[in-house]
Amino acid sequence: MTEPPAALIGIDWGTSSFRAYRIDGTGRVLAARAAAAGILSVADGDFASVLQREAGDWLADGLPVLLSGMIGSRQGWLEVPYCALPAGLPELAGSLIRHPDQPRLHFLPGLARLPADAAPDVLRGEEAQLLGALGEASGRQLAVLPGTHSKWALVEDGRIAWFQSFMTGELFAVLRQHSILGRLMAGDTHDAGAFQAGLDYARRGPGGLLGRLFSARTLGLFERLPATGLASYLSGLLIGTELAEALGGDVPEDDRAVLLIGTSALVERYAEALSAFGWPSRRSPPDIAAKGHYLIARTAGLLP
Amino acid sequence: MTEPPAALIGIDWGTSSFRAYRIDGTGRVLAARAAAAGILSVADGDFASVLQREAGDWLADGLPVLLSGMIGSRQGWLEVPYCALPAGLPELAGSLIRHPDQPRLHFLPGLARLPADAAPDVLRGEEAQLLGALGEASGRQLAVLPGTHSKWALVEDGRIAWFQSFMTGELFAVLRQHSILGRLMAGDTHDAGAFQAGLDYARRGPGGLLGRLFSARTLGLFERLPATGLASYLSGLLIGTELAEALGGDVPEDDRAVLLIGTSALVERYAEALSAFGWPSRRSPPDIAAKGHYLIARTAGLLP
Repeated sequence: MTEPPAALIGIDWGTSSFRAYRIDGTGRVLAARAAAAGILSVADGDFASVLQREAGDWLADGLPVLLSGMIGSRQGWLEVPYCALPAGLPELAGSLIRHPDQPRLHFLPGLARLPADAAPDVLRGEEAQLLGALGEASGRQLAVLPGTHSKWALVEDGRIAWFQSFMTGELFAVLRQHSILGRLMAGDTHDAGAFQAGLDYARRGPGGLLGRLFSARTLGLFERLPATGLASYLSGLLIGTELAEALGGDVPEDDRAVLLIGTSALVERYAEALSAFGWPSRRSPPDIAAKGHYLIARTAGLLP
Repeated sequence: MTEPPAALIGIDWGTSSFRAYRIDGTGRVLAARAAAAGILSVADGDFASVLQREAGDWLADGLPVLLSGMIGSRQGWLEVPYCALPAGLPELAGSLIRHPDQPRLHFLPGLARLPADAAPDVLRGEEAQLLGALGEASGRQLAVLPGTHSKWALVEDGRIAWFQSFMTGELFAVLRQHSILGRLMAGDTHDAGAFQAGLDYARRGPGGLLGRLFSARTLGLFERLPATGLASYLSGLLIGTELAEALGGDVPEDDRAVLLIGTSALVERYAEALSAFGWPSRRSPPDIAAKGHYLIARTAGLLP
């Protein structure tokens, strides 16, 4: 059986992972690959060799290649300036940067939010996922991309209008591995009851995270939670705090079904957490970054 | 010149440090010693040898010895059950535990707060400092003990009525050493302007810590703060968040001059932070733990 002709190679190249998609002229993903070849693992900035190694056979056709993620950062292959908000398909398509020596390589910009009254915020890579899911949608949609730094975004009529980064996942990791909270924790199994207990505590007022973190130790000391539940409890406390911050703040409430983007186990945790907070959620389809690559490439006129 | 006769040896023995005080019959500190001999550094639970090494010459007189801090925890020499709140000199004096083989060694209990609607909280060691400063005072006083886990406490007519632990100091350390936030940071010099910028951001609403932490990176990325100021900024953001949580929550406001207990550089930071929040503060005298040891020993009838 002959594979349908490909029209585009999409590469989602982040800090710790590399994902490649072979995409046809209608946006369908013909093949996908993933490798632990994030930009931090690339020696001497030799990104060209890594791309050749991971997807060289796909490059032989001379197809256009769209690259998103930290590959377009200062630590990556070629630094692409941030694009301002609101940013939709036309803005991103118009901000692609071609590699000077390999003009079929097109790098996507990240996004910057520069509020007058707060610190800047940035993302790189999530814009392809957000526009893959919502770049052609109308109306207003709140989306969440769980991860090391989870991103909340508001997309209005196909344009990313606002986003915010939460360091929840990284905070969980450093507290578990390097703080006193990790010392009582045992095992890696998810404990649904302990996770809910963490969510519940986060939802209750008054108080805040700094004064609550120690509970992930004391509940163990007083044997109110088993050692095997303390990590799930901390995860619930942190994700719950993120939800309380995000949903209690600036985010409008006129469309309450949150779109969860991603495929990790963390997405399931966020769905449970949103549900505990009374917010319904729905999931994006898989390979949504590839869809974003396709829509942006099509808007930029890169497809045959 | 002859040293006045000592009446008590006080030992403040925590996780990472050992402090010993030779105290006379009026509560005056005749001599003080400190060593990096915290309980985590003691091999094979041989606390007796470490005590002998660090203060053996003081022990020769057969004086009573009062020990406070993590030495009385499960990881220490002898586990002393937590004392409930409110706890003043009579409660702590009545909760001392003697070492079964060395009856002149008296171990102080820690304190537990067990609210019906929240997680338990505990402290060990700070009770001696709090009662040293306020065990004989009348009225109501809010006190803060900055540290790895800072403690806020309310003392009413000489009794500790409430306290709360904030993991602020440890969070700063793990974020600086192990998270992406540390990567842009340079140098160890305090940057007063950056510290204030962190305080300011913490004080402003709406929003919370998880959504603000990333600013300690983006302000560097956008060159709004120098790399040498980012650690001070993060410190200000965290301490400011702690203050916003503590002062905005349950703590009564009827005595607004906060007592700061401790001698580290961190105490100066908390004083600056309280001032930025409009709260005056005052400092406790040094060696306040020794004063606590003295008052508790006297109340327990241990002094000659």
